[in-house]
Amino acid sequence: MVNARSAVPTDPGADDAASRRPTMSQVAALAGVSVQTVSNVLNTPGIVRPETAAKVRDVIRELDYRPNHAARQLRTKRSGLIGVRVESGSTDGVFDRFLHALTACAADRDYRVLLYTARDDDQELASYDDLMQRWDLDGFVLSHTHEGDRRAAHLMERGIPCVSFGRDWDGAGTHPWVDVDGAQGTRKATGHLLAQGHRRIAFLGWPTDSRVGNDRLAGYRAAMQAAGLPDLPVGHCRNAVDDARLAAHDLLRRTDATALVCVSDLVALGALAAVQLRQATPGAPAVEVVGFDDTALAEGAGISSVAQPLTAAAEQSLRLLMDRIDRPTTVDPPTRLLLAPDLVVRTRRTPPS
Amino acid sequence: MVNARSAVPTDPGADDAASRRPTMSQVAALAGVSVQTVSNVLNTPGIVRPETAAKVRDVIRELDYRPNHAARQLRTKRSGLIGVRVESGSTDGVFDRFLHALTACAADRDYRVLLYTARDDDQELASYDDLMQRWDLDGFVLSHTHEGDRRAAHLMERGIPCVSFGRDWDGAGTHPWVDVDGAQGTRKATGHLLAQGHRRIAFLGWPTDSRVGNDRLAGYRAAMQAAGLPDLPVGHCRNAVDDARLAAHDLLRRTDATALVCVSDLVALGALAAVQLRQATPGAPAVEVVGFDDTALAEGAGISSVAQPLTAAAEQSLRLLMDRIDRPTTVDPPTRLLLAPDLVVRTRRTPPS
Repeated sequence: MVNARSAVPTDPGADDAASRRPTMSQVAALAGVSVQTVSNVLNTPGIVRPETAAKVRDVIRELDYRPNHAARQLRTKRSGLIGVRVESGSTDGVFDRFLHALTACAADRDYRVLLYTARDDDQELASYDDLMQRWDLDGFVLSHTHEGDRRAAHLMERGIPCVSFGRDWDGAGTHPWVDVDGAQGTRKATGHLLAQGHRRIAFLGWPTDSRVGNDRLAGYRAAMQAAGLPDLPVGHCRNAVDDARLAAHDLLRRTDATALVCVSDLVALGALAAVQLRQATPGAPAVEVVGFDDTALAEGAGISSVAQPLTAAAEQSLRLLMDRIDRPTTVDPPTRLLLAPDLVVRTRRTPPS
Repeated sequence: MVNARSAVPTDPGADDAASRRPTMSQVAALAGVSVQTVSNVLNTPGIVRPETAAKVRDVIRELDYRPNHAARQLRTKRSGLIGVRVESGSTDGVFDRFLHALTACAADRDYRVLLYTARDDDQELASYDDLMQRWDLDGFVLSHTHEGDRRAAHLMERGIPCVSFGRDWDGAGTHPWVDVDGAQGTRKATGHLLAQGHRRIAFLGWPTDSRVGNDRLAGYRAAMQAAGLPDLPVGHCRNAVDDARLAAHDLLRRTDATALVCVSDLVALGALAAVQLRQATPGAPAVEVVGFDDTALAEGAGISSVAQPLTAAAEQSLRLLMDRIDRPTTVDPPTRLLLAPDLVVRTRRTPPS
């Protein structure tokens, strides 16, 4: 069971509800824009200024405005479905937050998300025909992109609109994508530690075959270089608490670092355990730890963490996908967006020594 | 317009791919069962022994066997879509894990999950007509059930199959549901602490208007009573680390408890912070903390936690929903399943004093 909502709803008469449905004119009036602008926000959002679009969407949500589905669907011949793969057997808090935001953004545009699963990329590639034949999806939002990823090219070749949340690591693709600038995140994290007076700052990352991990490492190195400081030896570990604890223990011993920039919150949690052990030694310096992804783990441990702008990532992914759906034969170069993450600063409750 | 499932021309490679597809006979042979049994697993799983069904599903996954969609759909006139609501603006790790498992289980039965969102129950009730008209959903898996929840009754009255993950708290419904026995979980957690020699065990829970929270409290009380021990005053807090830390601090002061059974991992993490503060006092006893939901938080903090069987919950929810879809006019009383959670025991790395 999941946590129960306490609110007890009241029953709206279905007919009354229909007659009380807000109109596009009401949305326009309340948002202080023209009806055409509201229509643009819904159908061709790329031509609307972001601030205006945000204002209109706020009003749409507030009034629970929904366009006339039947008329719209007849006109556009769309299924109103977007395919998203969930990894079977595993969950990823960041992906789940993106998925929730994507579902909400899609609903604003009168689309729904269809979930499918696949054991691996090959199985995913093999499933596209089936998904298209049975449900006539209007497009796909891919995620978990990686080197040698053939999914976007496969869809593009078949004229199926797609966007990926996650960059095109090979750089050869022609599809639009949205990603978060991980290097900028670790630059901010490292900059925060530098501003606090730390000079011996080390990085605890994932194995070197992780492109996402290497991107985050690069941001740390850039910040150290910009400050005229040497970067310290790098620690590597799998994304697991115990592995991170051992790696952090070793890294602290080797580097005498006073601060650790960690590639993820889970790794930061392991680092924190190593730090607490170390601080038991009389005279050992306090060690600051910064995480990445601003999950409940970071909140729980009271550590600063880099937050990915997942709602913006979902909105932009949808916008780019809709643009492809609206203009299937476009020859414009694909849009690529690197969004800026923010550092959420927390003051850790250090256990009293 | 009803369903938009227009056929998309298959690419030339499709025939080859189709000819290489595994057949139902191959699945049957590899699983060591009859073709009829494989068919039953796919269509009327309720009549197959669970061990047999599990074996067949393993083979189905291994071979990536997929029934002939078109034939099946023509025969059954189904959309192959199941509706699931995601809460807008918030994520819940337990729900997300259930959703992933549900997506995988649904795929095994050749169904996909359609996500929709709603601000509240009223909006959800108002959205059913639209979802049915546009996508002809075969059924719904509801979650986040609560007192006064009218959603299942609303769907049942319209002949739309549904099941809820989360019990019918009012007990008046006629729909099938699957839930996890929270009380059994906290009984196990309390029993574990009793077996370790703890006698002064307290419970830190949610506000008293949470039925889920009260269920978990009842399990703690039952275990204490069975052991012939008095239950201690109960602490209450919102599901947030800082709130839990303050409540735990107060609870420990009032009760001198040596162990805390917590209503969630997030609450347990707050309790842990209070415990660490307390253990700084010379002579203060070590305090054990047990959480609920076995999230990454529990793993990260190294505390024991009650794990909900979310894959089983997803499988059973699907099974009950399929039974309703297959037998829409059944007058059998609805099946209600309370699944047993397990305690995941961890030895906490206590920070050295």
